[in-house]
Amino acid sequence: MTAPTPQKGKDARSLWYDHEAGVVSTIDQTLLPHEFRILSLSGLHDVCEAIRSMRVRGAPLIGITAAFGLALALREDSSREGEDYATAALLATRPTAVNLAWALSRVRGAIAQVGADERAERALAEAQAILAREIDVCSRIGDHGVGLILDKWNYKTERSPGAQRLYVLTHCNAGWLATGGWGTALAPVYKAHAAGIPVHVWVDETRPRSQGATLTAWELGRAGVPHTVIADTAAGHVLQRGQVDLCFVGSDRTTARGDVCNKIGTYMVALAAHDNGVPFYPCVPTSSIDWSMSDGVAEIPIEQRDPGEVTDVRGLAPDGKAGAVRILPSGSHAANFAFDVTPARLVSGIVTERGIFSADTASLSVLRAQLEREESHAG
Amino acid sequence: MTAPTPQKGKDARSLWYDHEAGVVSTIDQTLLPHEFRILSLSGLHDVCEAIRSMRVRGAPLIGITAAFGLALALREDSSREGEDYATAALLATRPTAVNLAWALSRVRGAIAQVGADERAERALAEAQAILAREIDVCSRIGDHGVGLILDKWNYKTERSPGAQRLYVLTHCNAGWLATGGWGTALAPVYKAHAAGIPVHVWVDETRPRSQGATLTAWELGRAGVPHTVIADTAAGHVLQRGQVDLCFVGSDRTTARGDVCNKIGTYMVALAAHDNGVPFYPCVPTSSIDWSMSDGVAEIPIEQRDPGEVTDVRGLAPDGKAGAVRILPSGSHAANFAFDVTPARLVSGIVTERGIFSADTASLSVLRAQLEREESHAG
Repeated sequence: MTAPTPQKGKDARSLWYDHEAGVVSTIDQTLLPHEFRILSLSGLHDVCEAIRSMRVRGAPLIGITAAFGLALALREDSSREGEDYATAALLATRPTAVNLAWALSRVRGAIAQVGADERAERALAEAQAILAREIDVCSRIGDHGVGLILDKWNYKTERSPGAQRLYVLTHCNAGWLATGGWGTALAPVYKAHAAGIPVHVWVDETRPRSQGATLTAWELGRAGVPHTVIADTAAGHVLQRGQVDLCFVGSDRTTARGDVCNKIGTYMVALAAHDNGVPFYPCVPTSSIDWSMSDGVAEIPIEQRDPGEVTDVRGLAPDGKAGAVRILPSGSHAANFAFDVTPARLVSGIVTERGIFSADTASLSVLRAQLEREESHAG
Repeated sequence: MTAPTPQKGKDARSLWYDHEAGVVSTIDQTLLPHEFRILSLSGLHDVCEAIRSMRVRGAPLIGITAAFGLALALREDSSREGEDYATAALLATRPTAVNLAWALSRVRGAIAQVGADERAERALAEAQAILAREIDVCSRIGDHGVGLILDKWNYKTERSPGAQRLYVLTHCNAGWLATGGWGTALAPVYKAHAAGIPVHVWVDETRPRSQGATLTAWELGRAGVPHTVIADTAAGHVLQRGQVDLCFVGSDRTTARGDVCNKIGTYMVALAAHDNGVPFYPCVPTSSIDWSMSDGVAEIPIEQRDPGEVTDVRGLAPDGKAGAVRILPSGSHAANFAFDVTPARLVSGIVTERGIFSADTASLSVLRAQLEREESHAG
């Protein structure tokens, strides 16, 4: 794989392995949208730092990056001890990321029976396979999701022949930056845009880290997809005024009954969509469904992060450099909840790489049975 | 009236007339919370600039300030032409502010039969009366609202004897800065705090202008009221996790059936409160009820403001000066809706200076009849 082509959303890649240099290349997402800089990760230390400091972010991409990190570590030390050490170091970077543990476990499974001199190479191949698989999963999520957009567009133009745009609202960044390619929530949007449907995206800013206003707006701009950024507070208003046709969001973890844990603020978007009869679809790789959990509100622990993300806002200073301003008065404190849980009753359907499922235990258990059958055949 | 005492919320005043200097003194709210600067408004031009540039903000305070502005203008030119000119200039500063027109009409009514040499003095007396009346209205809103807090605190401590705090959530700034004194939504909080109820306030940041994170946090800090600022996206989460006992918000305009137009984002707070069985109370001076409107979503036009408030964030730069950072990539655009409408069905009750009314036409028509009876007696 070569350099990413961010000007064309459908081909864009957020991470690739450079065989000549022997490094993993990725984009420093902490600098976007104001600076586009490629990072070269040449070993375990680089990879851990990139994940910990969120230069690499998005649940699927964290998993992919960690898989490559383990492969790079084995190049230095291919012993079992080296493997254990690297795994522990990578797991410690973002303790709550489900995909990270999943990807590492896949790489370790692939090299369990492999001799020391082939382990690094075999791990690298597995990391490449994980990357390819994630991109394929996202593309298939896009194929299912674009059907929803097309149906809605046909319905809208039948009722209002003069309709100019099909409006999608999204929260946070679940685009190709957050995954290997395509994205989850944005994959249907990119496919609709490529198919000539005049899609327009309302982009929630997504405080406190503003991933919508920075990363999603940047992705959509590079891909030529029309979009408008709004404050998070305005999502309810545009939904209430009939200015949204569909909502697509990502998910960090989805439970067996369809409760959806995603970026803080997703729950309020879902409430407003539901209150106004606008369909709300989380786009979810099946690997991020946590079959061990049912009641997301009761069971999913919510990570709290640095309050500095709330008290201060980062962006581009007038001098053209990265800067930050403090919002709060001195002496006032902030709390920073990273995720929230949207109950299944507010979810219109869960878009996966295997199709769209109702957000309930019965429907999702059919999906689970499919996955288990396939796994047992593969085994 | 003397200088404000912002360290004591219950006595704080946002505007006062300095008889010796013959100027209106107020606080430059665009500099808060990082700088506290008193503005002296000595004539019509100063007053118009202060309102237009939002140095003075909050529906009640805009009305009060405009009333003083007309009095100051009449000091320069007490003719009918001068009065008309000043009125038009003041109305043009914030065309959608209902209180502005209301206050100007009150001053003009008071001087309609007054000779030229007494008009300025009489207008000043009327402005002073409006200020005193607004402070009294807020104090009485506080008296009714604190009863809700006390009831909830008693209920909570009976059920959970170890309860440490009574949690209120608020959005935007509806404190003494936005009114003559006390505030609307914050008046019950200040009265509860003074009465020894251990109230703790969750303060929504309130993007795009961040009035919660700046003004409300500053007010509460000065008054010694414990509070925590959260991103707007987090309100649903704290409500869902049982961390909020009551919601209080302000209102710019309330309809005859109880639909509430307030700062953008209020609607989503109301949805989340309703979804979790947490009472949601707008605090509303009866003068801001628009009896000519019923269906707020259909009838209230929503002002759009400068998209720059969304694309950029203002605050305190590391050098200790006011600064701003740009969030969005170049080429991406933003929309900035200033208000939204919360349907009456999501409102637990409307707290007014005359008591708490159900948000429905029948209940509010009783209030309306009271007000009309009194007006006809006064007439």
